[in-house]
Amino acid sequence: MKRLFLIATLVGAAPALADEGMWTYNNFPSAKVKEKYGFEPSQEWLDKARLSSARLAGGCSASFVSANGLVMTNHHCARGCIEQLSGAKKDYIANGFYAKTEAEETQCPAMEINQLEQITDVTETLNKATAGLSGKPYSDTLKAKMSELEQACSAGDAKVRCDVVTLYQGGKYNLYKYRRFQDVRLVMAPEHAIAFFGGDPDNFEFPRWDLDVTFLRVYQDGKPAKTENFFKWSEKSAKEGDLTFVSGHPGRTSRGLTIAELEYQRDVAMPKMLFMMSEVRGMVTEFQKRGPEQKRISNNLLFGVENGLKATKGRLEALQDKKFFGQKVAAEQELRKKVDANPEMKKKYGAAWDEIAKAQGQLVNVRKDLAFVEQGNGLSSSLYSIAKTLVRASEELPKENGQRLREFNQANVPALTAGLLSPAPIYPELEIMRLSFGLTKMREELGSNHPFVKKVLGKESPEKLAARLVKGSKLCVLKDVKGSKVCDVAVRKGLLDGGKAAIAASKDPMIQLALALDADGRAVRKNYEENIDAVIKKNAELVAKAKFEAYGTNQYPDATFSLRLSYGSVKGYLEDGKKVEPVTQMAGTFEHATGEEPFALPPSWLKSEKLLDGATAMNLVTSNDIIGGNSGSPMINKDAEIVGLVFDGNIQSLGGEYGFDESVNRTVAVHSDAIIESLKKIYGATRVLEELRPGSTKIPSVPTKPAG
Amino acid sequence: MKRLFLIATLVGAAPALADEGMWTYNNFPSAKVKEKYGFEPSQEWLDKARLSSARLAGGCSASFVSANGLVMTNHHCARGCIEQLSGAKKDYIANGFYAKTEAEETQCPAMEINQLEQITDVTETLNKATAGLSGKPYSDTLKAKMSELEQACSAGDAKVRCDVVTLYQGGKYNLYKYRRFQDVRLVMAPEHAIAFFGGDPDNFEFPRWDLDVTFLRVYQDGKPAKTENFFKWSEKSAKEGDLTFVSGHPGRTSRGLTIAELEYQRDVAMPKMLFMMSEVRGMVTEFQKRGPEQKRISNNLLFGVENGLKATKGRLEALQDKKFFGQKVAAEQELRKKVDANPEMKKKYGAAWDEIAKAQGQLVNVRKDLAFVEQGNGLSSSLYSIAKTLVRASEELPKENGQRLREFNQANVPALTAGLLSPAPIYPELEIMRLSFGLTKMREELGSNHPFVKKVLGKESPEKLAARLVKGSKLCVLKDVKGSKVCDVAVRKGLLDGGKAAIAASKDPMIQLALALDADGRAVRKNYEENIDAVIKKNAELVAKAKFEAYGTNQYPDATFSLRLSYGSVKGYLEDGKKVEPVTQMAGTFEHATGEEPFALPPSWLKSEKLLDGATAMNLVTSNDIIGGNSGSPMINKDAEIVGLVFDGNIQSLGGEYGFDESVNRTVAVHSDAIIESLKKIYGATRVLEELRPGSTKIPSVPTKPAG
Repeated sequence: MKRLFLIATLVGAAPALADEGMWTYNNFPSAKVKEKYGFEPSQEWLDKARLSSARLAGGCSASFVSANGLVMTNHHCARGCIEQLSGAKKDYIANGFYAKTEAEETQCPAMEINQLEQITDVTETLNKATAGLSGKPYSDTLKAKMSELEQACSAGDAKVRCDVVTLYQGGKYNLYKYRRFQDVRLVMAPEHAIAFFGGDPDNFEFPRWDLDVTFLRVYQDGKPAKTENFFKWSEKSAKEGDLTFVSGHPGRTSRGLTIAELEYQRDVAMPKMLFMMSEVRGMVTEFQKRGPEQKRISNNLLFGVENGLKATKGRLEALQDKKFFGQKVAAEQELRKKVDANPEMKKKYGAAWDEIAKAQGQLVNVRKDLAFVEQGNGLSSSLYSIAKTLVRASEELPKENGQRLREFNQANVPALTAGLLSPAPIYPELEIMRLSFGLTKMREELGSNHPFVKKVLGKESPEKLAARLVKGSKLCVLKDVKGSKVCDVAVRKGLLDGGKAAIAASKDPMIQLALALDADGRAVRKNYEENIDAVIKKNAELVAKAKFEAYGTNQYPDATFSLRLSYGSVKGYLEDGKKVEPVTQMAGTFEHATGEEPFALPPSWLKSEKLLDGATAMNLVTSNDIIGGNSGSPMINKDAEIVGLVFDGNIQSLGGEYGFDESVNRTVAVHSDAIIESLKKIYGATRVLEELRPGSTKIPSVPTKPAG
Repeated sequence: MKRLFLIATLVGAAPALADEGMWTYNNFPSAKVKEKYGFEPSQEWLDKARLSSARLAGGCSASFVSANGLVMTNHHCARGCIEQLSGAKKDYIANGFYAKTEAEETQCPAMEINQLEQITDVTETLNKATAGLSGKPYSDTLKAKMSELEQACSAGDAKVRCDVVTLYQGGKYNLYKYRRFQDVRLVMAPEHAIAFFGGDPDNFEFPRWDLDVTFLRVYQDGKPAKTENFFKWSEKSAKEGDLTFVSGHPGRTSRGLTIAELEYQRDVAMPKMLFMMSEVRGMVTEFQKRGPEQKRISNNLLFGVENGLKATKGRLEALQDKKFFGQKVAAEQELRKKVDANPEMKKKYGAAWDEIAKAQGQLVNVRKDLAFVEQGNGLSSSLYSIAKTLVRASEELPKENGQRLREFNQANVPALTAGLLSPAPIYPELEIMRLSFGLTKMREELGSNHPFVKKVLGKESPEKLAARLVKGSKLCVLKDVKGSKVCDVAVRKGLLDGGKAAIAASKDPMIQLALALDADGRAVRKNYEENIDAVIKKNAELVAKAKFEAYGTNQYPDATFSLRLSYGSVKGYLEDGKKVEPVTQMAGTFEHATGEEPFALPPSWLKSEKLLDGATAMNLVTSNDIIGGNSGSPMINKDAEIVGLVFDGNIQSLGGEYGFDESVNRTVAVHSDAIIESLKKIYGATRVLEELRPGSTKIPSVPTKPAG
């Protein structure tokens, strides 16, 4: 990994130069884009782009690409669904999927798509409500007021989701109103071998040759939903220098964190997480050798772990880079100096950094209990999570909305219910492995004499307890439906509907355990939320406000898995002194193949090699500022037409969590031409093609002119 | 983990206070011991203790405990042998081993024991030889001169091993002459369940209840060797406050490293190692589930990995501790100030720290190549290591001694040959797993486009290549001897004897690969040794000399797996404000048991519970300064009698790599009384008992008076 941080700016310390920024749609720097690229997005352009963008509630981005609800995202974003629809005899991960007719479009067991319909600034309302408060009263009031706003916004409509989004670490609050699509069906997915060609070794690398695409469709009342806002497909290939926009949902950046928070990430949180993930990776890799079925059911988990490992290692390296970290320290010191130099600012904000540092110090002490007693790091089982949610739902849902644990807010209830009643299969063998592992880690981290460990394990070993719990639970009774395994969720439904009485009467071992441990988790959480998290949030808000006062408000907030728009251009970069060209070609895919996983092309590609135009653009990189969560984002040109499908960042971009370096940070996308060429010549996916580019199945595909 | 660093001293910065120090036998601070404990070891006492101490060449300590070559060490130090002697039908790890007659004592396939006969200071000779040199000429000359001294010392006698030991980072060089015992036989080992009671969860913890002991015997000419120097068994139990000595071979400390070196350890080396080891741990844990035989053959590997993981995490936490690291920084700054203040010292030593820092910076750049191209992190296979050693031996052994790669020095040839021709079994299934993993990591770390990766993998996947290499190699042809698997090493012997011609003609795929990669490894190593390692060594020597000039020579050197003596006393400590008592009792063993691994006692113990005196001392802690490598060390009283058997340090002691804190750092040992009580009442090991305490099988065992 080449690390070459010449950070143009650190959020808040100076106006953003270069192509930096994951901008909110209500604060997009159109004028700045015009200055650099000669094009100024209008309000109409922005509204259309916003409404054509989509979010997968599970943690990815997507876009509407036809008026009939066709949605484009990454294969790796839809793989949960593809895997769930597969069975031992019909492996859509390995063989791909294509619905030749509408009737063949198959519903994903647990997928929800959101469309951002409206943004309202509610900062003033919330600031007024919490004025003068701190600690528990502050966080209680903030939570209650947020719930109230969200509930008023959705007004009991299950098709609407409203979230108060905390921006600028609490410097601003916006209410985001989404339309929810919960009937999502799989339309077309290529084989995993080409969707994730190069596998983990090539992940976050460039040059690259992936067709990481999947098409879904949102349905309403059993029919394809009408989506008047969608992105058209570009007739012109994107080439070096072209202006590009990416509209998507970057999950999280930490550019506004204080040094104390960054040090905690660098020295405690990230190393611990990496040790755990590395171990899971080794375990799952070996678990896969038990047999082909075990491989199939654990592929999704392994992908997630490997992807997370590589991403987190990149982030850790960024923070370990002395020069980079030094810049962060310098920026904080500069701001603190400005604050201290102004008596009024000093009074309002001066103590905020030290308060955060103190709270971080306390977090070190409660970290393990928080992770294992409340956050389920030890009880790492889907069944246990469901049991815990059912137990808490029975307790929380009867309460006043403002009094509930935040995840049980009325606004979350539809998503919560959908999750609890999802028939997505849960495989006992995988569950037992994951849970045994988690219980072992719990004992390792907390120690064999910790009261919680004794309470959970008793005299049982992690393996025996895990097997007993998983085998004894009826929360997912697997059954076969059209060759796919799904959960019969009748027991869950009974427990959800039956409330506290049903929970108390349940003999299900997962429910009984969740019930026995509930108070322990709540106590740890309460202490954390009231004495640590509330302090950090409150003071982070002060730091954000200090930045506004010192540097003005023309800034972008840290990413929060809410919709953002970034701008940039198709652009190569230097690595080891050599230029990396920004566009790869289809011919390179075949050159890079070895015939062995993960460099083995699927039969459909090998068979079609001669039919393809080898010069067709395959993947491309742009200088857009993105991060994890942006996977599946549409890459569009100034006419708001699809020119690519974002699926990755290069390895240099991983430090983007903490800062942006335009010289090397790159967005990696599937080129729109590769999608058309393969749909046409490899997959014969005429239905999809016709929707993307009406008439295109009758004319030859446009050959790409690769840049450089 | 409680971290409470109040380091009495940092090596070199001030005279050692408290019980700090792993002292060489030729610079032992007897006067200081007298001052604190009222007893001054005489030269005779020291000589006797030195000659009664033993080293397991594989990386542990031990002691002679009878005149007939009886050796005591830890079970975990001998587990390689115990495992190798086991087979599917006679599992000595699970069931223990006891040779009722001399004839039943069974030879360990790959074990060597060394006894330190003589120490000679050769500092002046080497300094003279390298005077005025630096870079390659410096390291070449140093290496050649060391070889010359070693060769002259052993004078071709295969029963003698001579090593020039680098002390004080090169501030001093001592020639250590060892007597070598290569016929080592297993006499008695308890079951793994009690030898490692509490397993990984209790590892490095205290209170503790382990019987981590194994008895071996050295043979000469087919008969038990006569060992006139040995430790007698104490008739008196060690109790709180008693003076204790530990004579053993601490493997490595890094108390004298510069800040640049420590930062490299903290930010690069240790995290990378931990990620790798965590992954191996997950993989092997899951590999064990393939079946009981797989579990048996991989237990040793898993133990090593888990032990290493916990130890390394402890070390990393020490360096991440800001206060602790700050003390190291302050000590270095103080020394540099002293150097800079004295024009003559400044001229000699002033640049050393920056030179080391520069070299560390270069190490970051070549680290991956060094690890994967030369050090075999990717080709992680015992067969490949043997192949590589055979290939290099054919190249190196014909050379002049001084011209060879250091590990092929004449002094090392006997050990090298013994290793190459060891019949210790190598299991293909485990080999394939380890090698596949290593190759995958190699591709991950170096990238799929690295020339070395392409050379190794070609178009094969890591799994296929590993399987082809392991299955195709004849370097270990497994055969059954008396129910145990051993390697037929005829092919290896032929290649070793046949030299270059035999190597070139070999069709063995491991040999062919090792041959093909040899030049790559040598090139990377040459660059590292000449441009980085030589610079660090040379300048570390200057730093050490600066310390001598600034603070005098009454210091102990960093540990280097050479014999050291430490002093201390039986002593509890505070944890979470509560006193941890220094001695546990046998009754506690039964209380701590759950019946589930790793807290399940073996049947022999469960059966004997009523026969045992529950008040017998089981384990104890002392304030001796030790570290990994000290496992198996005798713990002796002022009469040089055995009072314990060192097998661990407490978790607080892991930071001992970088500094010693007498308030909490503790050595953990099996109490001598527990060994006697269990040999007598559980194992009926009369032969061993009679050797340890002649007549003891006729009298009742001495009940322990536990301290506190």
